Formats: sequence, C-alpha cells, structure tokens
Amino acid sequence: MKTDIPQLLSQMTLEEKASLCSGLDFWNTQPIERLNIPSVMMTDGPHGLRKQAKEADHLGLNDSVPATCFPSAAGMASSWNRDLIRQVGEALGQESQAENVAVLLGPGTNIKRSPLCGRNFEYFSEDPYLSAELAAHHIQGVQSQGVGTSLKHFAANNQEERRMSVDAIVDERTLREIYLASFEGAVKQSQPWSVMCSYNKLNGTYTGENEFLLTKVLREEWGFEGFVVSDWGAVNERVDGLRAGLELEMPANNGIGDAKIVKAVQEGQLDEKVVDRAVTRILEFIFKAVEQRQQDSSYEAEEHHALARKIGQESMVLLKNEDQLLPLAKKGNIAVIGEFAQNPRYQGGGSSHVNPTQLDKALDEMTKLVGDQGHVSYAAGYDLDSDDIKEELVQEAVQLAAKAEVVVLFTGLPDRYESEGYDRTHLHIPRNHQHLIEEIAKVQPNLIVVLSNGSPVVMPWIGHAKAVLEGYLGGQAFGGAVADLLFGEVSPSGKLAETFPMQLSDNPSFLNFPGEQDRVEYREGIFVGYRYYDTKQIQPLFPFGYGLSYTTFAYSDLKVDREQYSDQDQVKVSVKITNTGQIAGKEIVQLYVKDSESIVIRPEKELKGFAKVHLQAGESQTVDFTLDKRAFAYYNVKLADWHVESGTFEILIGSSSRDIHVQQSINIQSSVELPLTIDRNTTMGDITTHPKTEQLAKELLDRSGMGQLFDASDDMMSAMVKGMPLRALVNFGQGKYTEEMLAQDIEKLNQAFVPHQ
Amino acid sequence: MKTDIPQLLSQMTLEEKASLCSGLDFWNTQPIERLNIPSVMMTDGPHGLRKQAKEADHLGLNDSVPATCFPSAAGMASSWNRDLIRQVGEALGQESQAENVAVLLGPGTNIKRSPLCGRNFEYFSEDPYLSAELAAHHIQGVQSQGVGTSLKHFAANNQEERRMSVDAIVDERTLREIYLASFEGAVKQSQPWSVMCSYNKLNGTYTGENEFLLTKVLREEWGFEGFVVSDWGAVNERVDGLRAGLELEMPANNGIGDAKIVKAVQEGQLDEKVVDRAVTRILEFIFKAVEQRQQDSSYEAEEHHALARKIGQESMVLLKNEDQLLPLAKKGNIAVIGEFAQNPRYQGGGSSHVNPTQLDKALDEMTKLVGDQGHVSYAAGYDLDSDDIKEELVQEAVQLAAKAEVVVLFTGLPDRYESEGYDRTHLHIPRNHQHLIEEIAKVQPNLIVVLSNGSPVVMPWIGHAKAVLEGYLGGQAFGGAVADLLFGEVSPSGKLAETFPMQLSDNPSFLNFPGEQDRVEYREGIFVGYRYYDTKQIQPLFPFGYGLSYTTFAYSDLKVDREQYSDQDQVKVSVKITNTGQIAGKEIVQLYVKDSESIVIRPEKELKGFAKVHLQAGESQTVDFTLDKRAFAYYNVKLADWHVESGTFEILIGSSSRDIHVQQSINIQSSVELPLTIDRNTTMGDITTHPKTEQLAKELLDRSGMGQLFDASDDMMSAMVKGMPLRALVNFGQGKYTEEMLAQDIEKLNQAFVPHQ
Repeated sequence: MKTDIPQLLSQMTLEEKASLCSGLDFWNTQPIERLNIPSVMMTDGPHGLRKQAKEADHLGLNDSVPATCFPSAAGMASSWNRDLIRQVGEALGQESQAENVAVLLGPGTNIKRSPLCGRNFEYFSEDPYLSAELAAHHIQGVQSQGVGTSLKHFAANNQEERRMSVDAIVDERTLREIYLASFEGAVKQSQPWSVMCSYNKLNGTYTGENEFLLTKVLREEWGFEGFVVSDWGAVNERVDGLRAGLELEMPANNGIGDAKIVKAVQEGQLDEKVVDRAVTRILEFIFKAVEQRQQDSSYEAEEHHALARKIGQESMVLLKNEDQLLPLAKKGNIAVIGEFAQNPRYQGGGSSHVNPTQLDKALDEMTKLVGDQGHVSYAAGYDLDSDDIKEELVQEAVQLAAKAEVVVLFTGLPDRYESEGYDRTHLHIPRNHQHLIEEIAKVQPNLIVVLSNGSPVVMPWIGHAKAVLEGYLGGQAFGGAVADLLFGEVSPSGKLAETFPMQLSDNPSFLNFPGEQDRVEYREGIFVGYRYYDTKQIQPLFPFGYGLSYTTFAYSDLKVDREQYSDQDQVKVSVKITNTGQIAGKEIVQLYVKDSESIVIRPEKELKGFAKVHLQAGESQTVDFTLDKRAFAYYNVKLADWHVESGTFEILIGSSSRDIHVQQSINIQSSVELPLTIDRNTTMGDITTHPKTEQLAKELLDRSGMGQLFDASDDMMSAMVKGMPLRALVNFGQGKYTEEMLAQDIEKLNQAFVPHQ
Repeated sequence: MKTDIPQLLSQMTLEEKASLCSGLDFWNTQPIERLNIPSVMMTDGPHGLRKQAKEADHLGLNDSVPATCFPSAAGMASSWNRDLIRQVGEALGQESQAENVAVLLGPGTNIKRSPLCGRNFEYFSEDPYLSAELAAHHIQGVQSQGVGTSLKHFAANNQEERRMSVDAIVDERTLREIYLASFEGAVKQSQPWSVMCSYNKLNGTYTGENEFLLTKVLREEWGFEGFVVSDWGAVNERVDGLRAGLELEMPANNGIGDAKIVKAVQEGQLDEKVVDRAVTRILEFIFKAVEQRQQDSSYEAEEHHALARKIGQESMVLLKNEDQLLPLAKKGNIAVIGEFAQNPRYQGGGSSHVNPTQLDKALDEMTKLVGDQGHVSYAAGYDLDSDDIKEELVQEAVQLAAKAEVVVLFTGLPDRYESEGYDRTHLHIPRNHQHLIEEIAKVQPNLIVVLSNGSPVVMPWIGHAKAVLEGYLGGQAFGGAVADLLFGEVSPSGKLAETFPMQLSDNPSFLNFPGEQDRVEYREGIFVGYRYYDTKQIQPLFPFGYGLSYTTFAYSDLKVDREQYSDQDQVKVSVKITNTGQIAGKEIVQLYVKDSESIVIRPEKELKGFAKVHLQAGESQTVDFTLDKRAFAYYNVKLADWHVESGTFEILIGSSSRDIHVQQSINIQSSVELPLTIDRNTTMGDITTHPKTEQLAKELLDRSGMGQLFDASDDMMSAMVKGMPLRALVNFGQGKYTEEMLAQDIEKLNQAFVPHQ
C-alpha cells in the first residue's frame, strides 16, 4: 500500500518535521516511531559499497564490510562502455540491497579541471558529455535494483585544496557548458534519487545555500524530482540551505540544525511551507526505499568479481606498443617487476575506499596464464612507503631483467600520492619508480610499463619503454584483467577520457590552480581538457579519446541525412567502421562537432556522440548518431538559453580528438534572432551588417556625410568608420548632425526590432 | 610675466569656460580674444611630427609638413637605450618648436597584449617596466625643449577591433601590475604635460568618463599635474567626462559638448567648480606653452636624419646568425632582393604617419658602402600591393641569387598588413614573401633575411635563412642603418622588447582576443608576454630580451649589499660584464626578480632593471642596480597597496628572459601584516598557522576534541582537518561544542588582531 505522504505530513509537529531534515547518525535518516516512519541507510560509494561495519567514527572513515571493488570512475570511464557501466551499477545495487542500503552515495561526475585534483580518480572525465553519459548509465544500473544514487558533488568542486571554504568563481557560460552539463545529462536521463551538494562556494555562495543551483537549475530547468543531501558536514547555515533547496543535512547535527529550523519558522523568518516541501521529498524517498527493499537479498561475490575483471579489461588504455611487443606470448622467460604486481594499487583513498571481497595480484594471474609453457619471475624493485631508491631492490630487479626476454614493470602512484582531502603538486611518478624504469631499460629493451594511478602522470621516461599500459585504479580484479590484456586474451579497448599533458604547465588551469587562499578563478573558462589543447594547438602526451588496440580499424562512408537543417531538426549521421586487423576487437567511435565561424569564442571541437562497437576481424558495422540542437549550441547568457548560430558546422568522426578520420560539413539555420539594442555607442558596422537595419543605416550615413568614408577602398579608413559608434556622427558631423537627430535615428533603428502587430 | 590664472578665470563667463574645454578645430585649442587667451596647437605623433599642411579633413589624416621620421616605438624600444630615446625626444621637441606645435601627441605606452594589435608598432613593449622607462625618457626629451607630450592611450586600449565601443574587462591587480604600471612609471618620472584617454571602455565605463582612472589613480595616487585630453572623438557624454577628470575634448565639438556643460551647470547637475578646475588646468597648459615657445626656432634636418640612423641601428635585432654569416665583407657579388630594399616599409599607418624629410633606401646605402670593391645587384621578387606570387619576379630573383655569393632578402609586412584601425588575424608574412624565401634558399645557402614589420611574425621558413635581422619599422634612415649593421660598421645591439611566439595560439590572449562583440575579457590576467611564456614553460621562437651581437659578453661577480632586507630597504645589486669577443659592442643587461614562494599567483620572473653598456673588446664594466620595494611587490587588492611577502626572492641577471647567467637569493621581511578576519568559515589550517592565533587555535582544537585528528600522521586525515572551517567543530563535535561556544571563540580569535592600546 502506498503511503499517503500529505496525510502523514499533516500529522507531524514542526519539531518532527525539522528532525527529519537531518540524519539520525552518520549514515541513517531520522526515524519517527510514533508515525511509523522508518530509518534508512545511505552509504559510500561510487565503485563499491563502503558500509561501515561498526559504529561510525568522527569522520566516517573506519573499516567496512566486504564488497566488490570495481575500477574507480577514472578507469571505468576509459571503457566508454555505457552497457558495461550499467551492469556495474546493477551489481552495486544488488550488493546494496544485500546490505540493506537505500542509497549508494555516487556517482561523482565533477569535471577534471586539473589532473592534480586528489579526487580525480572518482570522477569520469574532462568532457561533460562523456561524463554525463557514463554517470547516467551508472545511475540507471543501481536504481534498476531499487536502490537510490546520490549524484555528487554538485557543483564546481574540482579540487580538494580548501574544498570546504574555497569559492569557485566561474562565469555562467562555462558553468552551463562544462561544469553543470556534466550533471545535467545524468539528471535528465536517469533521475537519481538524490543529488549531493558539494562543500565549496560557487560565485560567493556555498553550493548548499545556492538557490540558483539547487532550485532554479536543478529542479526548475532540469526537472529533478529527488532530494538534495549535503555532503557530509557541508551545511553552513541550515536555514539558508533549506530555503535554497537543500533538504537533508548529513550526518546528524545533534539537534542544532533542527532547532534552527524550528526557531526560524516560529520567528517568521522561514515559511513552514519550505519545511513541508523538504519533508515531503524526504518522506517520498524513505517510503520509496522501503517499497523497493528486497528482503533477504544476496549476491554472488564470484560473479561480481568476474564482472570487475571484465570492466577492468576495458578500463585500461594501451598508450604505446612499439614493435607490437604486446600481446605477449605465453612462453619464455618473463620478468615481472614492481611491488604493485604483488601489492596492487587498485583503488583510491577516502570515502570511496572499499574492503574488497577478494583481491587479484597481477603476478599470480600472469603466472596462471603462462602455466608450464614459460617462466614468470618477480622482483619488487621499490618500496611502497617511500620515494627513496633502495639500491639492493634495484639491483635485484636489474639482474632479473637482464636474464629475461621481456620485462613487465608495474609502477605508478602509491596511495599517499592521491586521495580525497588533498591534491597533488606535480605529475611525476615517484623517483624510485622512474629510476627503476631507467635502470631496467639499460639491460632490457623489451620493457612494458603498466601504470596504476588515478589521474595522469607525465612520462619523461617513456622513451625507455616499448609499451605502456595505463591501468588506472583497476579494482579488485585488476591483476586478472591486466594479465588478460598482456597475453592477448582480449584486445585492449579503453580510450582516455582525459588528456595526458606533456608537462603540468600545459594544463589550462595551471595558472589558476588551486587559486589564492579561499578563492579560485576558473579563468580558462570553457577551455577545459581537449577543448584547450586542441584550440591552443598544444601537443599533448596523449590526446583525449586516444587508445591503441591489438587490431586496427578503418572509418568510411560518413553520411548525413541532409545538408541543410534548422536548429529544431535532428541531424542523423552514420559512419562505417571496419576491423581491418587480424583479431577481434572493440573500437570507440567518437563524433565531434566544430562550429566553423562564430561571434562567440568556441572551442576547436566538442564531443557530441560516441559508440563502442565490437568487430570480428574483417567485420564492418554502420554506426548511427542522432544529434539535436544541443550538439551545436553554446549557452547564450543574455538569451538565458542554448543558441545555435546560423552557419556551417563540421561533423568530425575519429578515434581520438586528434585523429579525425572522416568529416562532413552541414549547414544549420537558427530559428532564433538574437536581440540587438541600439544606443549611441552601437557601432556603424553593427547596424550596417544587420539585415533589419541595413537600409536605415545606409540612409543615416548618407545624411550625415559619413557614407563616402564607409565605402572607402582604404582599409584603415573603412575599418575606422565601421568601428565608430553612432555618436561619432555628431562629433565628426561638423554641426550638421545634432544630438536630437541622433536620438531620433536611434529610436527609428530600434523600431526595426519591434515585432509587427 | 607669469599669467595670473585664478584672476583670469574670475573674468570668464560660464560659456567662455565651457568653450575652453574643447578644441577650436581639429588641432588647436580654443582662443578667447577678449581675455588674450591664445590658441595653441597639438599634433601627432610619437616618432615624428605629423602637422597637417592644409586644412584638416574629417578624421585628420591628410598630408603633413615634412618632418624627421624616427623608428616607431616598437623599434626604438628594441634599443633599450634610455639616453638615445631621450635624444630622439629632444629632436622631436625641436621640430615641434620649429613648427609652432605646443604638444606632440605621444608617446603611446599601451602594453602589447597580443601581437595582432594593429597599432603595436606605436607601442614599446609587453613589459610595463621597460615600457614606462622608455616612455619616460621620450617625454623628458620632448619636454626639455619646451614642448609638451600627451601620454596615450590611457588605458587598456590593447586592440584596434571595436576600439571605440569595446569594454575591456580587467581585474584590478592586472591593471595595476601590467596595464597601468606602464603609464605609472612614465607619469611619476616625467610629468607629461598631458595624458590622452583612450576610446574604449574599461570595466564598463568609458576611460574618458572613468573617475577611478582619471582622478583617483592618475592624479591622487600618481600625482599627475597636467591635463587630460580625449583621444580625437573619444568623448561620449561630455559632462560625465568632465566630472571624471577629462579636461579637454578634441577635436572641436561644434559647440555641442560646450552647451551640455553650460546646461548641466545651470540646471545644477554639475558643480561649476568642476568646470573651473578643468579650465584652470587648460589655462595652465596654454600659458606654459606660450611661455616656453621659442620664436624663430628651427632644426637641422641632416642632423636629425643622422640621429634617426643612429637609433635605427639600435632598433634592429639580430635574431639568427649561423656560421657568422654576418657581418658581410664589403666585396664580392651581393644580391639584394625584395621590393622593400627600394621601397622601404619604415613606418606604420594611421595618425603617426609622417612625411619624411628624406628617405634612405637599403639598396642605395648598401651599394654606397660596398663601393668599388664588390658588386651589388637587385631584383624586386614580389609586388607590394598583392600577396600573389608573380612567377617572373620570382624567377628573376632566383637567377640573380644563384649567381651571387650571398643574398640579402628584404621582406616583412606591407603597409596594408598593419595599421591603426584594424588588427591582424594571423602572424604570417605574405605568401609571396615566404615563397620567395623558399625559392631563393633552393639556389643560395647564404641567405640573410631582413624583416620590416611593426609586430612579431611567425617564421616557419626560418630554417631556410642563415641569418635573420628584425628591422621593425626603422624610420627614414632605415636603409642606412641596416647597411651599417649588415657590413659591420656597428655591431647589432637591439634586443626584443616582446616575445616572438612559435605560433599565434601560444599567445596568452589567444582565447580572448579580440573578445566577443563589444566585450573583451583579459582572462590571462598578469600573464602577459614572457610572464606567460616563462611561467607556462612554452618555448617561444625568440624570447623577450633576446638579441645577438657580433661580439660576446660574459656575466660575473653578481653581488648584493646584504642578504637580509626589510621591504623598506633599497637592495643594491652589481654585476660585472665583460666583452669577451673581438670587436666593440653594446650589451643590454637585464635584471629579473622571482618570488620563490607566494600565497598569490605570481609570474616566474619580472623585469625590474636593465642597463645598456658599451664595451670595447676585452673591456669589463660593473653595472649597478638599485631595487626598491616595488621591485618585489605584487598589488594586493584588499590592502589597496603594493605588498611584499616575507620570504626568499631570486635576483636573476641575464641577456634575455630565458638566458639567465648569474643569480642570487635574498631574503626580505615584510613590514606589513596582512589582515585576517576570522569567521565561522575560516579554516582550522589558517588559524593554526597564523602566529597571532596559533596558541588559541590549539586550545580550541583540544577543547572540541579535534586536536588529535589534526596531528594525525595520516596524510588524508590531516589534510581534511586542516581544510575544515571552524563551524565543523559544531557539526562534528557531537553536541559537545555549541554554536554559542563557536561565536565566543571567533570573537576571541579576532581579538588577537586588535592592536594593543
């Protein structure tokens, strides 16, 4: 029987309502026994359940019950595989049901503004379209099991440094096109049960008190129907937050926030309707969770481990493969070097830290796959808890490497390099890792480097390695997944969801990260990730969308359904992909759009579609894309809407942002006319080029005696006159043209924009 | 007898006063015969007098009387020669006296934000210190002759596109450190008789109506004592301008602006005292001009031409000189190619365009220098009025080149590429010039390219040339000056006053130039020119401060007078420079300062001193620098003052921004304590690290039970607690720490900043 929420609400005292607006404790909502309102549990996190086993500590960071640890978002995003991520979501939902968890706190869809951000491993991409698509499928998967998600951290939380006090200064167009868009697509497609506000301020206001974010954009524009929960400890002024649209404060506030709500209502500073609205949403959530609760639910840990291995395979990106050194044959003398092969770095630190059900080790999994046909040996090479070079470890590794036919070297970033709570300050791997690469390379040309890290590193050592496999933080089955790729059980099919720069200073946020004290300005604006590298023509180490395979693909037959469109039309695009190699493999086909000419500043290209296709050797498949207005639009702040400029756009299809294989021009006609308000400082060029004022402008120029100069063949004279404001007709009119005439003409020009009755 | 201005003012009617606030015509101030107030003349421009011969046209761009055309500012700046620029100023002053001109409209000291700006040739540098120093000496030279200058275009006029309507959005720190600093040094050192406001808006207000600029900064802070004149036609609302500090409107307004002033006073909207203040300043100027007028003044055109040749020599920069191809011997078969050798590009278009007293041609001057000992031949190679490749011209040039022992190829940007009024859209030389270089290189390895252009070009063709000499716009004696350098009559001694980028997109303003319609945001902030390239570690084609010589120099014995300073102390630095080559030459010694660590974002290094020294072969000289507070300071907007952070600074001395030869650390102690206001969102890290609150903070943390976590050895825990705002003590305090306790503690913490009585 469905609970009658309005009826329930009507029975509640103000104090009871207020009590429901914060948690019972660290993880559970407040119950009200008198009214049979139960308590339900929310818990971390995006790539595995982190349900604390015992009582929660101060910050809720204690040990948790075992759960499957999937690759963290940075890895999963590299799969570009919507279906697989949805399957991971389903598995997470099942585990949540088994542990009686109502909401899994994730996914995190903040944009990777800087590779330094300590929490990047929990986020998907530098691109909002890709990020939103993947988050949407993650959410759909979890919620299909009757478990809610909490899309986080809303919004503009792109660094850990001073995350609880920093004010992110972001212009609205950048917010709309980049930082909010990453949430927008996920909310609109998947209706997460909740959205979690972030810790930081946005343009002067805490996001948890930001009505623009929580109400205007999230609810009114995007149609969000769930509840907003604070990040744990993010509440500043409880009443301001409630008013802005923050329903649930977490964790428990010991009655302090609740009392503030009651007092504000009693003193007339807060309309009780605001409380009712929040309580209604919280009750809707609680009873939805109760209804969808599956009693005695359980899951098969082995099956989920197998799924973790599958997504683990697709979460890795083959960056380099000289002489086709990979895949390795399962024979001969293979040296596995690096402590990570035994003691994997497979997840990040902080609230998403999972206690895995089991843990694969690359060394074991590689040994298993090789079996009796070859010999796999091992040396640690470095210590995990220090950057110091330990000569005896290096020597042992070098000796092993010298005797082997090939070396697989596991390296990357130790736990202490990346975590929730702080950012990196450089992009290097530890010096003992780099030293090891250099020393091994001296004795062994067949060097394969496998990286475990949550965010890009620079690779001044890359010349020493014939092959580099970016493993990200691959989850509990990383060891098995990496063995599968190294020995060609499957072909690598991951592609970078972020740019790997040559050097940190190439990053667009470099001059403004992490800001000055409690203020960070996003001065690079919309030029985040490849939007910056491609527009500024900066060669990255590896571009966005890049990744190698053991097979090859050809692109052909790009077709669009028309050449001329209105901005209200759908644009249908198809392209043929052929596996031109010898083995089966998956290709990630990427569609970018470029606005060829614009009056606003636009990036060189933007991702607007992608598809992952599995092709047998020699097989072809046609991939279809449908693009709508948004694919061509920029956000026009004056119009307060998305706007497509009339003109030519390029459809670019390729295998990375820098490898465009086929392209096609189309023409789009806008259905919106941008308003033009003419005043004394409107330029002559603007009125002479606008179709509505062209004729009037000509008459005006002739009357004032400036027409002749306007048509001057002299470049300078012509440019100067075009750039002149209308008032110049008075200044340079030598008395023949007066202020009064100007005022009349301006009125007449503006009349051209008044719609005919 | 000195005119009694207050007495004169008291005799004037309101109408007479208003009339004085605008011009009589295009170039002259308004006379008042009744009161014996004469009319005086102002005329263009910075590197040569442009006094219109006949009646001025609409825009004042007609032919002018002959005058010496010196190199334009971009070239002169490359000399880094304060004394020589002062001498040019003196010559300009003499020519102005001879032509009865009271004010020469210049110099222009706008910062080169983008190499695309069409008027860059009229400006000095991308660096405000260098720009201000050179402008100051130019002004001193002109004004030593009893002729005024008008420092322009004040301010933030860094593009020609929409210059009359564009709104430059610039944050205050950037304004202070970059765009205003370039004017500040010149005003403070040299008191120009006038400052000319620019056409554009700055942060929403026309510069000519901007009280912050014209009154607060210019007069109150910098102590400017002259008058402000509008750029010709820059007045928008006359009364607003007058109120803000714009005294003189130019050109004549046909009584329209004057009538507005009268009406505003009569209607009580404008205090007559504002008019009196403006009229007083204008009268002071007029009578100063009259007093300093030298009757029957004249000048020696030949002497000025010789001076133009001298500064022309130092205005060129030798960019490349492989195999020491230069200097050329005055013998053999020398092919001179390129129409510019006969028909030089020696100045830019627009208001600074001078009618030269004579004009050297490189071909003639080279022929003269070679005399009978060799043979100089010539081919045009390209047409000036088109970018089209003319095969017959190319073939003729190639045949000539093939027969010669060396080719000197004159190329660069034709007039139509650069001008007041419009900006460039790319940095390439015309394709017919580039084609010619490529074709000549095929037949002649000894290729010297001489460039004539007002602003950087890219050089994809540079591999074809053994030597490249950047000639800028070298004035009427360019032909002689370039011949002198080519044949080693003098050694090149110019250095770039701006960065030459590898490609346009490397420029810091690239993503925001020229903005969107009538708005341009200076998002790169203080990172202009080498401040950007050096901080972002982008390799330029040629760095700021770069230039080759025919001799070599060594740097040694860098000394500072102490190691520890207060920000009130002067820092005395000396360095020894030795000419280690075989011939005499001049070196430009550059001193940069780097703040090693800062809480604000600072550039990698900033120019704070330079000296040009002339050394015979083998000679040494010790160069002294004195640095004051400003050399180490950034502008602190909250403090509304320049601030030096306590800590380590590096003194870097070198021959370009990328060639630092000697360096020394010093320590500076600040005498200013930055204010800290503590509120509920101040972080725990901030109060525990500030010496004034350290102890209180410790007690507070212990009381709230968070002290333990703060000292946690765990990186993440420690970082998270340091980043927590004080209010978190309540949220995470589990009821033991209340809002009331927080309020009391905040008060106590703030008490620590109240000065003791």
